[in-house]
Amino acid sequence: MAKGFTKRKENYSEWYNEIVNRADLAEHSSVRGCMVIKPYGFAIWEKMQSILDKMFKKTGHTNAYFPLFVPKSLFEAEEKNAEGFAKECAVVTHYRLMNDPEKKGKLMVDPKAKLEEELVVRPTSEAVIWNTYKNWIQSYRDLPILVNQWANVVRWEMRTRLFLRTAEFLWQEGHTAHETKEEALEETKTILDLYAEFAEKFMAMPVIKGVKTESERFAGAEDTLCIESLMQDGKALQAGTSHFLGQNFSKAFEVKYANREGKQEYPWASSWGVSTRLMGALIMTHSDDNGLVLPPELAPFQVVLVPIYKGEEQREIVVNKLKNIKNALENEGISVKLDDRDTHKPGWKFAEYEFKGVPVRLAMGMRDVENESIEIVRRDTLEKKSYDMHDLAGKVKNLLKNIQENLYQKAIDFREEKTHFVDSYEEFKSILDNEGGFIYAHWDGTSETEDAIKKETKATIRCIPIDEDTKEGECIYSGKHSARRVIFARAY
Amino acid sequence: MAKGFTKRKENYSEWYNEIVNRADLAEHSSVRGCMVIKPYGFAIWEKMQSILDKMFKKTGHTNAYFPLFVPKSLFEAEEKNAEGFAKECAVVTHYRLMNDPEKKGKLMVDPKAKLEEELVVRPTSEAVIWNTYKNWIQSYRDLPILVNQWANVVRWEMRTRLFLRTAEFLWQEGHTAHETKEEALEETKTILDLYAEFAEKFMAMPVIKGVKTESERFAGAEDTLCIESLMQDGKALQAGTSHFLGQNFSKAFEVKYANREGKQEYPWASSWGVSTRLMGALIMTHSDDNGLVLPPELAPFQVVLVPIYKGEEQREIVVNKLKNIKNALENEGISVKLDDRDTHKPGWKFAEYEFKGVPVRLAMGMRDVENESIEIVRRDTLEKKSYDMHDLAGKVKNLLKNIQENLYQKAIDFREEKTHFVDSYEEFKSILDNEGGFIYAHWDGTSETEDAIKKETKATIRCIPIDEDTKEGECIYSGKHSARRVIFARAY
Repeated sequence: MAKGFTKRKENYSEWYNEIVNRADLAEHSSVRGCMVIKPYGFAIWEKMQSILDKMFKKTGHTNAYFPLFVPKSLFEAEEKNAEGFAKECAVVTHYRLMNDPEKKGKLMVDPKAKLEEELVVRPTSEAVIWNTYKNWIQSYRDLPILVNQWANVVRWEMRTRLFLRTAEFLWQEGHTAHETKEEALEETKTILDLYAEFAEKFMAMPVIKGVKTESERFAGAEDTLCIESLMQDGKALQAGTSHFLGQNFSKAFEVKYANREGKQEYPWASSWGVSTRLMGALIMTHSDDNGLVLPPELAPFQVVLVPIYKGEEQREIVVNKLKNIKNALENEGISVKLDDRDTHKPGWKFAEYEFKGVPVRLAMGMRDVENESIEIVRRDTLEKKSYDMHDLAGKVKNLLKNIQENLYQKAIDFREEKTHFVDSYEEFKSILDNEGGFIYAHWDGTSETEDAIKKETKATIRCIPIDEDTKEGECIYSGKHSARRVIFARAY
Repeated sequence: MAKGFTKRKENYSEWYNEIVNRADLAEHSSVRGCMVIKPYGFAIWEKMQSILDKMFKKTGHTNAYFPLFVPKSLFEAEEKNAEGFAKECAVVTHYRLMNDPEKKGKLMVDPKAKLEEELVVRPTSEAVIWNTYKNWIQSYRDLPILVNQWANVVRWEMRTRLFLRTAEFLWQEGHTAHETKEEALEETKTILDLYAEFAEKFMAMPVIKGVKTESERFAGAEDTLCIESLMQDGKALQAGTSHFLGQNFSKAFEVKYANREGKQEYPWASSWGVSTRLMGALIMTHSDDNGLVLPPELAPFQVVLVPIYKGEEQREIVVNKLKNIKNALENEGISVKLDDRDTHKPGWKFAEYEFKGVPVRLAMGMRDVENESIEIVRRDTLEKKSYDMHDLAGKVKNLLKNIQENLYQKAIDFREEKTHFVDSYEEFKSILDNEGGFIYAHWDGTSETEDAIKKETKATIRCIPIDEDTKEGECIYSGKHSARRVIFARAY
């Protein structure tokens, strides 16, 4: 176990912070609420980006780039959207600094450089994008528009946590326009499936696909679909959302197209996004009391090679062997780091890479050279074995596949264990306080009940799950009729 | 020739705007000075990014991400840097909007949500990054730091032009820290070479590597290296810069490390960047009076396939043939678009892809099917040929290579033609007004002379070229001693 490192059961929140910090993933910056994503953390995000980007392109989307700033008059055009984000907007009011006449070497905002219209730093880009689509859409031939952008956005948050909630974060936001309602709905669903596939296949993180209730909906959407995952402290985390926007934005920005009959219509829209929040989800899904655990599909390097030797002669022999192994593994498409630094001891390296969650560690000393063997440790179980060198690359490849599957299965098992079907409000509260997890309970469908439960227990309706059986029942809170169970949880 | 399209000789600036606009590369947004990069334009930028990113990683760099905002007190820490950018900073002063009590449905800045300290939207990130490096650097073991970030930056520009000069632009900025001055200088040079290689090999754009004079130096740098290219109107364009920052930022931010003798030292720094400005350079280097011309290495798709047919029966035969060809080309690593839309005529498609600069167009009709041949047009020369189908993929591959080389050679020839060695100020002015181009002239080395020439002629010293012979002479302006010729030009 990592020395001096907080355990999950002692203080889950501190445990999370220590992983982010000591595994070199991210840190707080001098700017309130903004984070620095460090190279090791960013390499994981880059892997996520690259996989998602390929998935978007395969489903017909292209990337573009829209301005960082939204003029206030555009921002307020779609009322609900504006209302939803107005309270957390960074606002640019001036475009120049000047020397402070009273403090030598200091600068001040130049009062003469006040903008006529304030600019909002985008908290999301529907407004600026739909204002652009006005120029792009005239006829049904211009549809669908299937555009995504990778960008930074800013939402002024008072309480921030690295990756999970920061004032500035990185994300992708897709914005599509369609001829028909059905097409827009289908797109919304296609992306939800894509997000779920990404989460399960690459992050090894099981998710539940569902629909948000009205009060949890994206500001300006007709419907918000989401994927919800469960963290090890029993709290839920919304990992991605896909919104059906109806014609709200096309109407707000007066975007019309001539349909196949030559009549003017408002196009239908979707928008969808995942963010660096996924990093938080990834960390909390798999990591343990020894530090970060990464699924092989997203590890910056999947295998680390550590030589063990005494003296320069041994070093040369062992390192040369490891260089050959590196090549062999890389030829199989495995990403490898050989740490042959002489400034650090093998024990230090073992601890370091264990903490950083590298899926597989291979260590080789003189005895291994003589025996044609190598020591292998898998990060997920910390199991140690000696492998003979025959088809080592093939074995490591299988092992990585196995680790990926094992992490997913472990997370599935954990979620099952923490999933409760509850029929009374007393039991509901008791489970929330003692166990956490996803609680399937009947709800009468009203915002009043939802709000009351939230107020009393801090649990929210995470979603109305899509792919599950629907059976009627009685609301745990009001006793009224319930069309089906929904999922409650406390959430990030 | 494209209909109604402005020719270079008629109005170069209008010609440029029309290409950017009609080839769907970018457009102005509703935000003053900010552009929308459209999907086709962004696909070119993505190619640039992906190639550069691989080159950075191959030379040992990793990516990270630093905050968009710089607190004013950090921004002003390195005085020259602050002075250089203060006049073009977008400044965030508030973090919330509220309903305007006097105008229903309108928002206003909430006066209660004024920031204690204003935030500058990064015009460049030295300040915020060196403030972070303070936590990363304690010992020589922490060096070098070789970090890059892909980001948006904002420099408030009064006169903007798409890609060439916009208030917000996209770029990469590398920021490195080293033990010794020599290492930092070497890094600065390594990156300059990398930029030059990228420009020449991928953009097919010849560049001259040089050093900036003091007055053209980056604010806060000890030395600025640059690559300079020549556009078709005879004006120069600075395509990339690599700065040796000395210890300016480590001193301003009090970053110290324990050297190998245990003594505290200030690390040495470099920073370097290229931006979406390269898109402007690419467009202006190769395009002609028929529209955009793209080098195959950066074309979103290198080959377009257009079927020619009458009726559904022919369509099926021709399109099926083309699908096979698409597969064969893609197997050779060629990127291909098959445009089999029935809504547009072949002639319309020919014009469209010619204007969009697609390097190779293949068209096939029933006669081609019978003859086992295909019509091929290369965009750079507009030469049309009929190829037989034997090893078509191999032939197209060679053709693409040939186009890439031809574009580079054409640009080299153009630059040579427009390069002048001048020994009198009269001739200097006459060439500037009549021909433009790079002018190699003697300069006495003083800022006074440089400023006077700039004031009188609008020509600036683009650089003191690195890889060229140095011979002494007399300054064309002052007649004083000159150590060597430098390159003058009017510039973007």
